[in-house]
Amino acid sequence: MDEIFDKLIRFQVERDWKKFHTPENLAKSISIEAAELLEHFQWGKDYNLEDVSEELADVLIYCIYMANSLDLDIKEIILDKMEKNAIKYPVDKSKGNATKYTEF
Amino acid sequence: MDEIFDKLIRFQVERDWKKFHTPENLAKSISIEAAELLEHFQWGKDYNLEDVSEELADVLIYCIYMANSLDLDIKEIILDKMEKNAIKYPVDKSKGNATKYTEF
Amino acid sequence: MDEIFDKLIRFQVERDWKKFHTPENLAKSISIEAAELLEHFQWGKDYNLEDVSEELADVLIYCIYMANSLDLDIKEIILDKMEKNAIKYPVDKSKGNATKYTEF
Amino acid sequence: MDEIFDKLIRFQVERDWKKFHTPENLAKSISIEAAELLEHFQWGKDYNLEDVSEELADVLIYCIYMANSLDLDIKEIILDKMEKNAIKYPVDKSKGNATKYTEF
Repeated sequence: MDEIFDKLIRFQVERDWKKFHTPENLAKSISIEAAELLEHFQWGKDYNLEDVSEELADVLIYCIYMANSLDLDIKEIILDKMEKNAIKYPVDKSKGNATKYTEF
Repeated sequence: MDEIFDKLIRFQVERDWKKFHTPENLAKSISIEAAELLEHFQWGKDYNLEDVSEELADVLIYCIYMANSLDLDIKEIILDKMEKNAIKYPVDKSKGNATKYTEF
Repeated sequence: MDEIFDKLIRFQVERDWKKFHTPENLAKSISIEAAELLEHFQWGKDYNLEDVSEELADVLIYCIYMANSLDLDIKEIILDKMEKNAIKYPVDKSKGNATKYTEF
Repeated sequence: MDEIFDKLIRFQVERDWKKFHTPENLAKSISIEAAELLEHFQWGKDYNLEDVSEELADVLIYCIYMANSLDLDIKEIILDKMEKNAIKYPVDKSKGNATKYTEF
């Protein structure tokens, strides 16, 4: 992932896009790209793998830029959130059902 | 990232959630979490770093589940997309401006 | 609004699109169009009025189809929600600030 | 709809929220509420009608505020968009299928 990270930063610097990549603008961008991914499932569950993988990559790219703009370590924030999710969703309450923790 | 990937899969298996994690449902989930991230910027650019990092982690977690459900390698799809973006956004046309490539 | 409603239903019937317009698919469609609207503000607050009004119309069109698919009266659901919002956001607590009611 | 419109404006004025309701912030708000609507369909097509109608109302309320902030007439922009959609999606090409016009 370090290689990808370095390439993404170089891409950003070369285009002088750092100034656009504020946390707020990146949050909008992630939502926009997430919806482009969703568009491939707008009318059902069938999809074209290449199209979907491109849109998924776009979401990930903006997520990485966002982590960078906030000086966050991706691995760390995922592990932290997983710990919280494990408490919110204990195995005995959530096994086999998708109920939101607020509804337990 | 392999460690995170393994933990996420274990979390999913323990809760028997694989059946909910279809590509379509994950695409919806990514959009939903992206909007929760955006909510922290709903009225402006100020934010609470911990809240934002949790929501960003949620987006990333669903992206990883999606890549897994489609049997995609995250590093590979990002590198592929970056190559396409480099062609869409050549440095001379995009330096210092955020114009969409369709408007060049 | 009755005229618009009738036109939208005729548009739908002529194209035999009722079968695609399930509540779930329309919920996805509203999110997708909302993101296309947001895209016009991706990098800042400036916008092209015509583009923005087209995207806003798309969101509204899918909202009307959704109300129809659920047999809901738009006027009624808005009035109901406004009553709830008035309780959630009493004037004395919310005047001049955008704090979410869960944070009062 | 005029009655609703007046009530919404009064609600906004009483709380001094006009200053938050910029087109950009409203575009974010529409996406955020659209995702809350989508959340009710995150894991499938079943839904609670009351919950869904509340979220749909929230999307509509922000759409009305957005039209107001841009000085747009909702009826007019919907009719204009429907004309464009009728050209993009001629009956003979789109009858019974949900193919996007860019794929015709």
